[in-house]
Amino acid sequence: MCELLGMSANVPTDICFSFSGLMPRGGRTGPHKDGWGIAFYEGKGCRTFHDPAPAADSELARLLQRLPIKSRNVISHIRQATHGQVSLENTHPFLRELWGRSWAFAHNGKLPGVKKWPLGFYRPIGTTDSEHAFCWLLDAIRRRFPRPPARRATLWRFILEHVQELNKLGTFNMLMSDGRELFAFCSTHLSWISRRAPFGEAKLVDADMTVDFAELTTPDDVVTVVATRPLTSNEVWTTIPPGSMVVLDRGEVYGLEPGQRGVRRWT
Amino acid sequence: MCELLGMSANVPTDICFSFSGLMPRGGRTGPHKDGWGIAFYEGKGCRTFHDPAPAADSELARLLQRLPIKSRNVISHIRQATHGQVSLENTHPFLRELWGRSWAFAHNGKLPGVKKWPLGFYRPIGTTDSEHAFCWLLDAIRRRFPRPPARRATLWRFILEHVQELNKLGTFNMLMSDGRELFAFCSTHLSWISRRAPFGEAKLVDADMTVDFAELTTPDDVVTVVATRPLTSNEVWTTIPPGSMVVLDRGEVYGLEPGQRGVRRWT
Repeated sequence: MCELLGMSANVPTDICFSFSGLMPRGGRTGPHKDGWGIAFYEGKGCRTFHDPAPAADSELARLLQRLPIKSRNVISHIRQATHGQVSLENTHPFLRELWGRSWAFAHNGKLPGVKKWPLGFYRPIGTTDSEHAFCWLLDAIRRRFPRPPARRATLWRFILEHVQELNKLGTFNMLMSDGRELFAFCSTHLSWISRRAPFGEAKLVDADMTVDFAELTTPDDVVTVVATRPLTSNEVWTTIPPGSMVVLDRGEVYGLEPGQRGVRRWT
Repeated sequence: MCELLGMSANVPTDICFSFSGLMPRGGRTGPHKDGWGIAFYEGKGCRTFHDPAPAADSELARLLQRLPIKSRNVISHIRQATHGQVSLENTHPFLRELWGRSWAFAHNGKLPGVKKWPLGFYRPIGTTDSEHAFCWLLDAIRRRFPRPPARRATLWRFILEHVQELNKLGTFNMLMSDGRELFAFCSTHLSWISRRAPFGEAKLVDADMTVDFAELTTPDDVVTVVATRPLTSNEVWTTIPPGSMVVLDRGEVYGLEPGQRGVRRWT
């Protein structure tokens, strides 16, 4: 299994604090020693860092914990290999272009049998079930929507239906983004927290580190973090119900539950 | 204009020395202050670093000058913006997947009018003429070869013919790789050097730095570096004739000239 971390914000925000909470789980406080990766969106651009070495020992990961790269959408992943060897090409997040946008994807879980699902345009570069699932999902989106649909909820519902199909194969906790929205599907474990004024102090579970967000933010900032397990010990995180998906957009949290039409705002 | 740097080697090799020679040109000894990027292949995997800030001042670039990431194929680029604003999505190298492989592409020059050329599957994320040309080229390869052709020279010749078409629009110095071969097309300026036993000392033009490759290599190593302008002052670099392309494969240099069949080895 692996651990996921995502962030969505209404202003470019650095993820140094949450990233510092995740990295020790990559071989020190957690067993996820088989590589790590992170994707930062800046406008339509996306910069990624991938390392097949344990996050807890990585010089690059240390640099990123203090380099304040400001982004409105971030996806990160630390890996404990279950399917596919430990190598750079098997390190999440995976990236592909669709509609002239960068799509980033990270997955926690197992999808036995997914590699038999036929692919069209997108092909995996590595050997993970995760990347195969991502290619299948993007293929489906591309086939159905040669251009982005006019109503965003149309795309959200389509994605939800297809990730639920994938989830039937096994375990499929997922983060995916095109740089605007961040899709977070919970199969077993995924929680979120929204921070906004009045900001308070937060204390990491996995490192001896506390931050006072009031010092780092302005009153209008909205920052939502989503993670496999809560990263802080003194805040209340909301668990996403298994089988459902939230969509983060500029820090706000929206839901689409099966059988319902329209969008529901959770924050 | 911009500067290009590529490396091909028969064993995983770090590019710290050559990269240290290129980075000062990104705003200190050269005017290319509008961002930089680098792609390192490790097997089928590719890790990239992109920064829209000047290379000469970049903390990330400084880390990469001392972090010995070992790779057999590297493409790097420092940018002086001529077309498209300074932003992350306009920072080379650009990446796309074709045939389940990562293709990386960097360009130096201008291609007036290329944005009118129709695109099929691949779409630019940023606004540069370079990324448009890359999408057009990969579209052409994909359409002609749904699967990789059996003979490598068939692909090489197809690529050469198409980059010559692009070159007619303006200036098109290019580095492109799929992680196996590195294609280097010279429109105006591109030179290469192959290093092999007996290895000697090399001295950078742009930084006060000398390296004795004999201390860092084994007798079987073959390492070829290709760059817009020679990076060292005490070695002989070979200029690629304008309008032609060399293909680097495991450090060896091959040529394909128009009108001739087959492959010619230069090293």
